Amino acid sequence: MTGSPAPDLRPPVSPAPPGWDPYLDRYAVRAAGLTSSEIRSLFTVVSRPEVVSLAGGLPDLTGLPLDALAAEAARLIAQDGLSALQYTSAHGLPKLRGQICDVMKLEGITAHPDDVVVSVGSQMGLDLITRLFCDPGDVVVAEGPSYVGALGCFAAYQAQVAHVAMDEHGLVPESLRTTLRRVQAAGRRVKFLYTIPNFHNPSGVTLAVERRAEIVEICRAYGVLVVEDNPYGMLGFDGQTYPALRSLDQDNVVYLGSFSKTFAPGLRVGWVLSPAAIREKLTLAMESAILCPPTLNQLIVSRYLSSHDWQGQIDVFRENYRRRRDAMLAALEEYLPPGCTWTVPDGGFFVWVTVPEGVDTKALLPRALDAQVAYASGSGFFTDGSGARQMRLSFCYPTPERIHEGVRRVAAVLRSAL
Amino acid sequence: MTGSPAPDLRPPVSPAPPGWDPYLDRYAVRAAGLTSSEIRSLFTVVSRPEVVSLAGGLPDLTGLPLDALAAEAARLIAQDGLSALQYTSAHGLPKLRGQICDVMKLEGITAHPDDVVVSVGSQMGLDLITRLFCDPGDVVVAEGPSYVGALGCFAAYQAQVAHVAMDEHGLVPESLRTTLRRVQAAGRRVKFLYTIPNFHNPSGVTLAVERRAEIVEICRAYGVLVVEDNPYGMLGFDGQTYPALRSLDQDNVVYLGSFSKTFAPGLRVGWVLSPAAIREKLTLAMESAILCPPTLNQLIVSRYLSSHDWQGQIDVFRENYRRRRDAMLAALEEYLPPGCTWTVPDGGFFVWVTVPEGVDTKALLPRALDAQVAYASGSGFFTDGSGARQMRLSFCYPTPERIHEGVRRVAAVLRSAL
Repeated sequence: MTGSPAPDLRPPVSPAPPGWDPYLDRYAVRAAGLTSSEIRSLFTVVSRPEVVSLAGGLPDLTGLPLDALAAEAARLIAQDGLSALQYTSAHGLPKLRGQICDVMKLEGITAHPDDVVVSVGSQMGLDLITRLFCDPGDVVVAEGPSYVGALGCFAAYQAQVAHVAMDEHGLVPESLRTTLRRVQAAGRRVKFLYTIPNFHNPSGVTLAVERRAEIVEICRAYGVLVVEDNPYGMLGFDGQTYPALRSLDQDNVVYLGSFSKTFAPGLRVGWVLSPAAIREKLTLAMESAILCPPTLNQLIVSRYLSSHDWQGQIDVFRENYRRRRDAMLAALEEYLPPGCTWTVPDGGFFVWVTVPEGVDTKALLPRALDAQVAYASGSGFFTDGSGARQMRLSFCYPTPERIHEGVRRVAAVLRSAL
Repeated sequence: MTGSPAPDLRPPVSPAPPGWDPYLDRYAVRAAGLTSSEIRSLFTVVSRPEVVSLAGGLPDLTGLPLDALAAEAARLIAQDGLSALQYTSAHGLPKLRGQICDVMKLEGITAHPDDVVVSVGSQMGLDLITRLFCDPGDVVVAEGPSYVGALGCFAAYQAQVAHVAMDEHGLVPESLRTTLRRVQAAGRRVKFLYTIPNFHNPSGVTLAVERRAEIVEICRAYGVLVVEDNPYGMLGFDGQTYPALRSLDQDNVVYLGSFSKTFAPGLRVGWVLSPAAIREKLTLAMESAILCPPTLNQLIVSRYLSSHDWQGQIDVFRENYRRRRDAMLAALEEYLPPGCTWTVPDGGFFVWVTVPEGVDTKALLPRALDAQVAYASGSGFFTDGSGARQMRLSFCYPTPERIHEGVRRVAAVLRSAL
């Protein structure tokens, strides 16, 4: 045999038929927790231009100053390419971590840049925090409904979710207390409360400011960490921000932040702010997982924060999303059959709709797709089988005209089912 | 309480004193596997300009065409920014996956682009493969020594490592057989062989072509997956490439590839080629971990592959590393005391040195740092306490003159210890 590659004359492998998995007896137990989300399964259908997708969560980027960003990226690579294209620390670039602290000040957070760890989107922050804290069988408490990507992450680490009730003012403190008591009485260990206080995904509601201190207090009393996920906090339509839970308790709250909704998700730059001891472990976990987050992307965000009017840009996004929210609310009012109710978000991306009894949104989805509209059915946002009568409608990405048409189609499908 | 953020008048938190961790009783069991690598601990010392670091593994990027890359990135953002800055699929961009298949053809691999999953560096590919396959207590078989970042990854998933002997022709097939038999006889489950066939990290040796089919055959016979990590395979100093293990068995080999050493590590673009059933689970794990790899970075790599002479660029890197390897070998010959031996790599980044009996390279490291030179002591590359008489010297990053001076300093420290 010579040293040159052996020619392989077989044809390229094509994907195996679905359902056939010769490795089935070799996977780790946790691999069973990996399941495809409904939204991902629908991706091909939903990408067709004739379908109005109210299912996804893509931010609208049309307001971004692309020419200025292009020129900035070029300068960065031409002048500092040898460091921009090199490995860096797992902790993240110090300058960016300082700028992130400035961003968080807008929500009342005072933090040391050392306690910020840069991540590949805030999803990775959540993944690593779950990895650090959750043994199989541990319990995570989360709003019901909750972000589907967080539920998937908890399942991937074999953690179980106990849902806490929400109302129009967000997570209900008394329900949190009851849930913690019930889970602990059952001999189970609650590792953290996962919560999205602002413009919640999927419900669109915001945790009342009056409830925040109480929730932080309950978690502290029960010895349960708070993981505060805040991707949408800067996207309040009237420009208002709310005091982060982290601003009320710096020792027991881990804060997850992201530039995906205030700048650009394709860069995958998020962060975790945590107490120092956790941050140390988190940096080790980061190094073990990816060595370091992409250097170039961190520098692009850092330069964007220092040389662009990034808050003015967020105002553009806010106004954009506000118009789309208005279009959706008007269309819901105009078209939805009697008996439907929905939340009225003051920011973010989502409206949460409850349909009349007897309608199952998941069962109805194929008919919606036939009618060329997609939504996210409610059951995916719960782990306990709830949500059959609910759906999430996203107003972040389609134009107001498309949103109007999409809601009209959803309403027609609902009427046909009633 | 008003809706505006509560002012926090406390001073910013400074890091807690080392050793104090109030969360200690709350971490997952796996968090105990997270330990700081020696190289990371030394980072501050080693970054001082007067220290010659032969410890790290940073590629030398001085040959990259920065102006052309800058112009390309600017075009990309200006013309396609709305997609380059947007989320994409967890699977990776189809065009890039096709180009990756073309790259792998150079090592005899025939693959379908569907079976490639793009990752945040090949480290992330390894992390997710370990996540998919390893339950706590499972065994991974790996060369002794092996890549420190892989050992850290296995520890993070509570997998144990059984080392297999290497000689100057790489992993020894008979040792692999013995190890598999021994571990299985002890009632333990071996989940995969982790191997770096080409220009091994840290040993610098290359698996003999004659051994490759035998190793693939042994793993198949024992029902053990092969995880082939190949970051350096294109960096053979004479331009030769070797047939990948994957080219010999497409059903039982998972191949990890990377652009970190052939293009730019700061982009963090790597990939996993795996059989279709594993690739499906891997894509779900990717989505759960980070939603998707950075879009912009994938497009930069894709354009680089389609519009630059990337193979010519690799020739530049090869020649660069060959000169540095030569400088290191010459200096070792000139300075090292009698009784030292070392490997002679035909490619890659590393020389593996064995020192005379009675010298402990880890214990000696503080003296080396005093003498303003750093190396990676051998014990970090084993999980079984071996390596005390060994060290890894990297020739990838410093100039030939600095390498010469660095080896002179290492030799002086060794002489003082003998």
